[in-house]
Amino acid sequence: MLNVSDNELLTRTGPGTPMGELFRRFWHPVLLAEELSEPDGTPVRLRVLSEDLVAFRDTDGKVGIIDALCPHRRAGMFFGRNEECGLRCVYHGWKFDVHGRCVDMPTEPLDSTFKDKVTIKAYPTAEYGGCIWIYMGPPEKQPALPDLEWARVPDSQRVLSRWLQECNYMQAVEGEIDSAHVSWLHAPLQVEASPFRGRFNDAIIRDGAPQITVKPTDYGFCYGARRDADNGEYYWRVTQWLLPTFSLIPAHGFPRGGRCWIPIDDTHISVIQYNYHPERPLTEAEVQRGKNSPQIQPARYRLPDGVTIDICRDVLNADNDYLIDRELQRTQNFTGIQVIRTQDTAMTESMGGIVDRTQEHLGTTDVAVIAARRRLLKMARDLEDGVEPVEALRPEIYNVRAVDMVCTEGDFSHFMDLYAEEAVGKI
Amino acid sequence: MLNVSDNELLTRTGPGTPMGELFRRFWHPVLLAEELSEPDGTPVRLRVLSEDLVAFRDTDGKVGIIDALCPHRRAGMFFGRNEECGLRCVYHGWKFDVHGRCVDMPTEPLDSTFKDKVTIKAYPTAEYGGCIWIYMGPPEKQPALPDLEWARVPDSQRVLSRWLQECNYMQAVEGEIDSAHVSWLHAPLQVEASPFRGRFNDAIIRDGAPQITVKPTDYGFCYGARRDADNGEYYWRVTQWLLPTFSLIPAHGFPRGGRCWIPIDDTHISVIQYNYHPERPLTEAEVQRGKNSPQIQPARYRLPDGVTIDICRDVLNADNDYLIDRELQRTQNFTGIQVIRTQDTAMTESMGGIVDRTQEHLGTTDVAVIAARRRLLKMARDLEDGVEPVEALRPEIYNVRAVDMVCTEGDFSHFMDLYAEEAVGKI
Amino acid sequence: MLNVSDNELLTRTGPGTPMGELFRRFWHPVLLAEELSEPDGTPVRLRVLSEDLVAFRDTDGKVGIIDALCPHRRAGMFFGRNEECGLRCVYHGWKFDVHGRCVDMPTEPLDSTFKDKVTIKAYPTAEYGGCIWIYMGPPEKQPALPDLEWARVPDSQRVLSRWLQECNYMQAVEGEIDSAHVSWLHAPLQVEASPFRGRFNDAIIRDGAPQITVKPTDYGFCYGARRDADNGEYYWRVTQWLLPTFSLIPAHGFPRGGRCWIPIDDTHISVIQYNYHPERPLTEAEVQRGKNSPQIQPARYRLPDGVTIDICRDVLNADNDYLIDRELQRTQNFTGIQVIRTQDTAMTESMGGIVDRTQEHLGTTDVAVIAARRRLLKMARDLEDGVEPVEALRPEIYNVRAVDMVCTEGDFSHFMDLYAEEAVGKI
Repeated sequence: MLNVSDNELLTRTGPGTPMGELFRRFWHPVLLAEELSEPDGTPVRLRVLSEDLVAFRDTDGKVGIIDALCPHRRAGMFFGRNEECGLRCVYHGWKFDVHGRCVDMPTEPLDSTFKDKVTIKAYPTAEYGGCIWIYMGPPEKQPALPDLEWARVPDSQRVLSRWLQECNYMQAVEGEIDSAHVSWLHAPLQVEASPFRGRFNDAIIRDGAPQITVKPTDYGFCYGARRDADNGEYYWRVTQWLLPTFSLIPAHGFPRGGRCWIPIDDTHISVIQYNYHPERPLTEAEVQRGKNSPQIQPARYRLPDGVTIDICRDVLNADNDYLIDRELQRTQNFTGIQVIRTQDTAMTESMGGIVDRTQEHLGTTDVAVIAARRRLLKMARDLEDGVEPVEALRPEIYNVRAVDMVCTEGDFSHFMDLYAEEAVGKI
Repeated sequence: MLNVSDNELLTRTGPGTPMGELFRRFWHPVLLAEELSEPDGTPVRLRVLSEDLVAFRDTDGKVGIIDALCPHRRAGMFFGRNEECGLRCVYHGWKFDVHGRCVDMPTEPLDSTFKDKVTIKAYPTAEYGGCIWIYMGPPEKQPALPDLEWARVPDSQRVLSRWLQECNYMQAVEGEIDSAHVSWLHAPLQVEASPFRGRFNDAIIRDGAPQITVKPTDYGFCYGARRDADNGEYYWRVTQWLLPTFSLIPAHGFPRGGRCWIPIDDTHISVIQYNYHPERPLTEAEVQRGKNSPQIQPARYRLPDGVTIDICRDVLNADNDYLIDRELQRTQNFTGIQVIRTQDTAMTESMGGIVDRTQEHLGTTDVAVIAARRRLLKMARDLEDGVEPVEALRPEIYNVRAVDMVCTEGDFSHFMDLYAEEAVGKI
Repeated sequence: MLNVSDNELLTRTGPGTPMGELFRRFWHPVLLAEELSEPDGTPVRLRVLSEDLVAFRDTDGKVGIIDALCPHRRAGMFFGRNEECGLRCVYHGWKFDVHGRCVDMPTEPLDSTFKDKVTIKAYPTAEYGGCIWIYMGPPEKQPALPDLEWARVPDSQRVLSRWLQECNYMQAVEGEIDSAHVSWLHAPLQVEASPFRGRFNDAIIRDGAPQITVKPTDYGFCYGARRDADNGEYYWRVTQWLLPTFSLIPAHGFPRGGRCWIPIDDTHISVIQYNYHPERPLTEAEVQRGKNSPQIQPARYRLPDGVTIDICRDVLNADNDYLIDRELQRTQNFTGIQVIRTQDTAMTESMGGIVDRTQEHLGTTDVAVIAARRRLLKMARDLEDGVEPVEALRPEIYNVRAVDMVCTEGDFSHFMDLYAEEAVGKI
């Protein structure tokens, strides 16, 4: 459990909050490039770390992410005209480029210098790994983009999807680094029907009490979950949590991948899921499987405070209890909910917008959860004290891989020594 | 009128409030048994006195009402798997019985004793009179169930329905103990069309200013409303208000009954209506009439704070102005609203979530309303001072009946002396 | 820009606020007479300056606007029975006339005098210019109705419409007195397609940086916007802002007119648009054009706090992004939004409920906006100091007209001297 003030510190990422400042030291992927595909196309409304923004791709293909409201009289830039290398507010024609510079202010006399004094808030962006990334921190602290393998493979080897989740980011992160729940939440009732492939099935289903070991690293931590397999062997899953919200989940080829959980605000998340094959282009079937397209509908979404953002929402959601089917739950799988991703969402959203961690009772399988909280809390406090998260911002440390395998090795340190060449990617 | 602080004291029943503590000394019917009919069936989401709960019927048919969220990491127990005498959280498989004991904690090592230390909040329940009852107070203060006649008759003699009302409980209670409104709100425009049976019609419709006398009792009070009838006689209605929210309404045989108004939270009520015949099974037509089934639709309802509960809502509701028909109002009945129950609901909901009682102007027919407020306020304050409501908790005092009749007796005390054998049930 | 406290002072008009007090010195049109056409017809729910009210037309055709809730137990008067010169609460039959007097209190004994002591809040009303007007200030300060030309012409020469806008009143007022935006927000992409008639087209479209001069008057101000036209001439638009929220917009004959913006509450407006011909009855086509009927749907609207009012809402609204069409925006008009009124609404609503004026950057074309703010702030502060807005309340000063024309005169004072007979109506 956490006390009330630590829970606040952990979960609040708006401007001026300690955790918000820490998050503003990192690059975040906030859109899929395909959501902003066309030069001079329709702008996209975002909220990131509780700031309302508009993204647009200009005539030259460059992406700007700027304040949602015009600095003149605060009209919505989403309605703006995206034209000739700038987004022009339709209220009075003030026009801004991707850097936030006012490049036209036609309501002023020709000799006015007011245009040079007015800017719109604009953040550095990058296109990388099929995503649009944003950096919202102090310019002088801006790091390089992280060397994540999924982002560095050719586009043909990767499939992405993005959707809304209606809870605090940390509930989702904690679900992601929680190996134990895989044996329960995602379990079929018959081993034969398991969505987990091959021989690992049995271990995941049979051993619901994995032994978890956390190994802190500069990028966050990797942790090993050891389950008993057949013949005295062990089933190992070694996965990563990369600061601040990336996960890596093992697979043999596709769908190796993970997710990141970018706070829209303190009770909504923009999730990006990345799946890839490290060595070859994906097949059409793999792309379809990675996109989960039947389950996600393009949508604009009106947040509780009335502001609209452009983000897809799962058709299985809290409004319809994720279409839980109690007969399915009795006979086929543990939850009665159809999609693995949705099973996770149902859990984290059912806790409420921000879970009250004073009421928890953590067990032995929650060591990774505890480690992630402590790490984030410490880093946020350190930053308040002027200690920058420099170790975590080196790009090359993100070049790692998750791994799962069955072997006789039962000791985590030994296991990692033996299999380091797998767990640390060489691409 | 009430001042602001008395109005707060009267209307707030969440944990830790004085009125909430008083309510937690009583048993409350919170579900119909038929809503939780099947062993190992679908759990039902409740909010009672501002606490979020989940009810389930286990394999043996026993009913548990437990915290809506798992004590482990606070996932929603509604999604749980109801299996083998317990509700198992699908997140990590922790399983709880109807008493709140953790009966399986499969994420822990086999020799762990952690399971014995963790419980989920669980309240005592009872099945009685076709309802599921809950007791949410201190265990050592738990009283016996009240000897209400409607609850004690065989199931075949009773019909129940339950629905949502969107206002504070006290607005509904005040409407229920307010004999004067019957002459107006529920009046037809022609006497012949009155929904009230027989000769009493005339008096209710003709005398809209009944003389009200309140007689305090241990269970709350009974009050007599005397109207002028024909030939110098009087029409008497003597009805009860039983602590904290039960009403008894007279009828000759069916549909003798009443309603109780259990706070979901401070601005929503779960209403249970009970109608019964004290001596014989109901006919199918009586059951249909008592259920009001065409007007109530099964539904899940999302409360304003985002939490979903499982409760029916009237299809005539505030979203459609209760389908008020102004032509009907001009020509047929006083309100233009079709159903008596809905006429009441329209009034109490139109006051807003919690009515501002500083703005009222109470008249001579409001004596019962005033008496109920004073009684509740006094009992809540007494309990704060350590004075328990012991007199009100004796089961046998609830064995009373409402009565209406025409007679020559004009004095309430005399009337009650003469007709005590009717007003106090002998079942 | 404004600081936080001035922005609060400017935008809050509820009971007891300084700006609310200032607004309560003026008459406001709050309904179209046609919305309350029938004697003894259906009451209409209003919120005006954050007060919940009900309007009804009695048997004699007189209009009452009274408290939305009955003074007895606070039931909704909207459900009342409108009968025999009064609105009768259906809960207990208390009946009130258009002046708020209790004319029947049938729950009290015949000899009771309680009826004479109870009133329902009621405000003076007037029917004038096709509208129902309300005065909500101190009785002894009640002024005469303003001599607005649109209100004084015969009904056959006028067309009105009323609709909801979801933002603070001042955002709309500022848009209305902002000549510069006309050149942008409402501009076609080809001059030939301009909705502005005749030769003025070119100037409005070509000169997006009009020179604005504000001339304070007792009624508010008039301001001249001068644009360069052909052949060394100037295109002049001289329009008025009349306290507190009326605009006058020029036209040659129909559709001369304007709008007023009455606060429902601090984040919702009831807009009335008036168009008229000063000299002749309107044609059917002009009436249809003035009503905008295809775009506005009759509707009840539930405000965020749960209270329902009766007001039309534009079918192009924030829920559907005003049906912005990006292809239209690329090829036909500047916004991609179809209706001029809706283009304005999209801008003012996109700023949020109450725009944060600390973040603005005002330019040279915002002088009228600045002048209106200063005037309102000064008048609200003056009234707090006991200085009544007497100059602004003389009816005859509202008898003015807007004007637009092309001429050689480039100096505003000269222009006004030469064309005063046009700008000040003589009806």
